[in-house]
Amino acid sequence: MLEKTTRINLLFDFYHALLTPKQRNYMALYYLDDLSLGEIAEQYEVSRQAVYDNIKRTESMLEEYEAKLELLGKYQTRQQLLAKLCQQVAEEKNQKELLDTIDRIEKLD
Amino acid sequence: MLEKTTRINLLFDFYHALLTPKQRNYMALYYLDDLSLGEIAEQYEVSRQAVYDNIKRTESMLEEYEAKLELLGKYQTRQQLLAKLCQQVAEEKNQKELLDTIDRIEKLD
Repeated sequence: MLEKTTRINLLFDFYHALLTPKQRNYMALYYLDDLSLGEIAEQYEVSRQAVYDNIKRTESMLEEYEAKLELLGKYQTRQQLLAKLCQQVAEEKNQKELLDTIDRIEKLD
Repeated sequence: MLEKTTRINLLFDFYHALLTPKQRNYMALYYLDDLSLGEIAEQYEVSRQAVYDNIKRTESMLEEYEAKLELLGKYQTRQQLLAKLCQQVAEEKNQKELLDTIDRIEKLD
């Protein structure tokens, strides 16, 4: 499940400010510090099931925010275009080609 | 109040997906279609005060989202850097200067 973990980490980067402090704490301990559900439950003196439910609900919220705002999707598209632009500069492409790529980035929003 | 109206319009562009359908409708009628509070109240068969309260609450929510996510702020900074980059391309600046500006855009978020 590495791919899913990577995606949740990226979504957490973009949307953590919209979560409650408790949601943020559980997510950080589980995904960033790699604690087990049992260890988090012990630390907060709640059941393992309560931690699990909270984390699953938070993951759904992150996906709902992404469906609405597409911050991760737009970020990835923008970074690809910026990488392309770097390449074009390195290859000394003409002004028109550079300006076309810049224009595409400007229109992303 | 033109400046405030412009800002609310921009924030609405970025965060409208996070609002309820009713909030979106009131905001669009008031800010985009320029209807009066009374006209919106009549159309929805509610009091003028109810429309006013809803719109004020929505404006606060938009500012709270911006405080948390800074989508408008980052957008404006990015567009300034992209404009600078266009200028640099037009002036045929060297590769290092172009790559420095691209690097600043990549690191924005």
